[in-house]
Amino acid sequence: MKTYNEMTAEELQQQKELLIKRYKEYQDMHLNLSMARGNPSPEQLALTMPMLDVLNSKTDCHDGNIDARNYGCLLGLPSARKLFADYMGVKPEETIVVGNASLNFMYDCIMRAEMVGVLGGEKPWKDCGKIKFICPVPGYDRHFTICEMLGIEMIPVPLSEWGPDMDMIRELVKDPQVKGMWCVPKYTNPYGGCYSDEAIKELAALEPAAPDFRIFCDNAYAVHYIYKDVPVLNLLNEAKKAGHPDMVYLYGSTSKITFAGAGVGFFAASEANIKFMEKQLNTEIISWDKMNQLRHVLWFKDVNGIKAAMDKHAALLRPRFDAVLNALDKHLSGKGAGTWVKPDGGYFVTFIANKGCATRINQLCKECGVVMTPAGATHPYHKDPDDSFLRIAPSFPSVHELEQAIEIFCIAAQIATIEVLEAK
Amino acid sequence: MKTYNEMTAEELQQQKELLIKRYKEYQDMHLNLSMARGNPSPEQLALTMPMLDVLNSKTDCHDGNIDARNYGCLLGLPSARKLFADYMGVKPEETIVVGNASLNFMYDCIMRAEMVGVLGGEKPWKDCGKIKFICPVPGYDRHFTICEMLGIEMIPVPLSEWGPDMDMIRELVKDPQVKGMWCVPKYTNPYGGCYSDEAIKELAALEPAAPDFRIFCDNAYAVHYIYKDVPVLNLLNEAKKAGHPDMVYLYGSTSKITFAGAGVGFFAASEANIKFMEKQLNTEIISWDKMNQLRHVLWFKDVNGIKAAMDKHAALLRPRFDAVLNALDKHLSGKGAGTWVKPDGGYFVTFIANKGCATRINQLCKECGVVMTPAGATHPYHKDPDDSFLRIAPSFPSVHELEQAIEIFCIAAQIATIEVLEAK
Repeated sequence: MKTYNEMTAEELQQQKELLIKRYKEYQDMHLNLSMARGNPSPEQLALTMPMLDVLNSKTDCHDGNIDARNYGCLLGLPSARKLFADYMGVKPEETIVVGNASLNFMYDCIMRAEMVGVLGGEKPWKDCGKIKFICPVPGYDRHFTICEMLGIEMIPVPLSEWGPDMDMIRELVKDPQVKGMWCVPKYTNPYGGCYSDEAIKELAALEPAAPDFRIFCDNAYAVHYIYKDVPVLNLLNEAKKAGHPDMVYLYGSTSKITFAGAGVGFFAASEANIKFMEKQLNTEIISWDKMNQLRHVLWFKDVNGIKAAMDKHAALLRPRFDAVLNALDKHLSGKGAGTWVKPDGGYFVTFIANKGCATRINQLCKECGVVMTPAGATHPYHKDPDDSFLRIAPSFPSVHELEQAIEIFCIAAQIATIEVLEAK
Repeated sequence: MKTYNEMTAEELQQQKELLIKRYKEYQDMHLNLSMARGNPSPEQLALTMPMLDVLNSKTDCHDGNIDARNYGCLLGLPSARKLFADYMGVKPEETIVVGNASLNFMYDCIMRAEMVGVLGGEKPWKDCGKIKFICPVPGYDRHFTICEMLGIEMIPVPLSEWGPDMDMIRELVKDPQVKGMWCVPKYTNPYGGCYSDEAIKELAALEPAAPDFRIFCDNAYAVHYIYKDVPVLNLLNEAKKAGHPDMVYLYGSTSKITFAGAGVGFFAASEANIKFMEKQLNTEIISWDKMNQLRHVLWFKDVNGIKAAMDKHAALLRPRFDAVLNALDKHLSGKGAGTWVKPDGGYFVTFIANKGCATRINQLCKECGVVMTPAGATHPYHKDPDDSFLRIAPSFPSVHELEQAIEIFCIAAQIATIEVLEAK
């Protein structure tokens, strides 16, 4: 079978007519589908409903001598620090359990760095002139939005399935204005790949010029396997071994383990970082919601409880990812209309369209009732130089909805491909 | 009966010996008491335990078409915006329901103002040179700590029981570097007084030079009466009437209505402010904990539900405040060893010691097993020029503990008074 690239103008025209016919049939169905955001499905949320019973009017809300209902305990409920330290593979003293959103704590850490400074830094980032962050691409739009709002210059670095371009990063961190780097080490958002041991070790061994350089390691999918649990080295522990204990901030949450809007966020860093931060945090809050922390502790008991929950999530996510991946395979394989990455876990499938096709694919999808994450969202300033990366989020829709949505997507990818070839 | 000031040296010496004898008796009891922080008592927390049953595994967690368990709804669950808008006396569109801590949202608003700016402002506060906040004193230490950490210059303005010195404030806001003012309008922390209608109207009529001047109105005790519910004008609505709709940020929370560590915080401002903020907030968080918002809505149903809860809190707080106020009256009345304010509500009793006595009183208390809020905490930079203001927090201890603690406090106040007179 010929790829579109190998077809004659006539053959392309013929194919296009067939595709547009099918596209119009879908348009006539007036669908309203979305593969835009990584929201858990109602079935996934239902898994956690019994958690709402573990804290009730009869519960003793004490954790040792701490009353979870009252003020205090800035760094989190001791039992929650223990649970999520175990989850992150660090010590409780290296852990802070925060509110319902790890993203908010990432933002918060950057705001504090800007206004007050980071351990080892000479001055607050706001007084350091134009500062820069290294941004592996494709990456998570919400990371980039934080930098954009604060005027932090973002430097895109290509990310493969096994990690970012380390030579480039080693070169970049020689610049003392480079103060940070984003990193999703496991089932990267949106790639789905995992950083290799080598990539993690090379990151841990970085020798940044800025003493207040920090890797913002958003381990959002630490236990979120779908097909295979891929072991990934712990960046914080590797950084310790490499003599850079303070260089890594580690983030996680239960947003995709319990409730997306009402989970628990947590953070890990060297004890020196934690002590330094504690003083700053004492200014911004008296304590985060320890009752929700207690609820999570009583529900999971230990890390095995979390892992057991993730098996159930995987069982619900797998048919959805199957639907997407099978359709991509069925409709696009061997056609030269884009490639994609089969993830082992996480929440996304990355589609790499032919150059100049991503925006058009999204537009075609939209006009056929399928909302996608905007093209460019995977890149700083929404600028994907090749206009080729698209993020597919299969978690929320039902399998039936996904089957429709992804077929429309495949039709759109082919139409866009042909349009670009015709325009040449 | 003579005041200490009227006594001879001999009489003072005699009194002091009696007081020290009693003080030592208390020391020998090795007490461990605290009147330091405004924490609700276990009895108060127990009032809210049934709230833990309203959300359970059988609950439909939807609010209209919003699933409280999932991401989204940045400005808060619609039903929660309605409830807390009613509570604040504003419209739901003027309301944001946030996380568990209104203090955190005050901090957050200032951080955003510093880094990105405020509606109507020319540039972010960080680029405005040395900015200043007006701080009515005595005031809340945690407000002042935020300014101190961020290098915002604090200008103390005397506060009476009826409001701050408005002439001074009118003069101060002519300076465009003055960007903010703290304000606790009802049962002020720690005074317990309430801003008069006149004070509120004059605040609302302020003509600040800075277009991005904001009054941070922390209405922490809106319904927190103990002896009398004092009506206080709504500063936001008055500012609207006076043609300054954007000048006021209003804050509140259920920290002292449900659980101190796990309540719901909320915010009100003009719709223009809310719209401006929404874009900024979209960068820092996907959504706050809507499940806890839903829990509060189902528990209270409406503002009457909140008011009914406050009657129960008042019933628990009243004997504690009685214990403190009766002891002050019994031991100190007519002795010239300090004055105090009987609050109608709130969480504190303010004691105004004789000049130069506050630090010593706290030290004497501490050495007798009674922890107090540090002297100076009521003033910016911990600098009370007269060393006279002390904040008594009667909410947490039992009545029996309070009776002991406040007697020790009264003994300490008298010893300190005599020491200062003797040193003259």
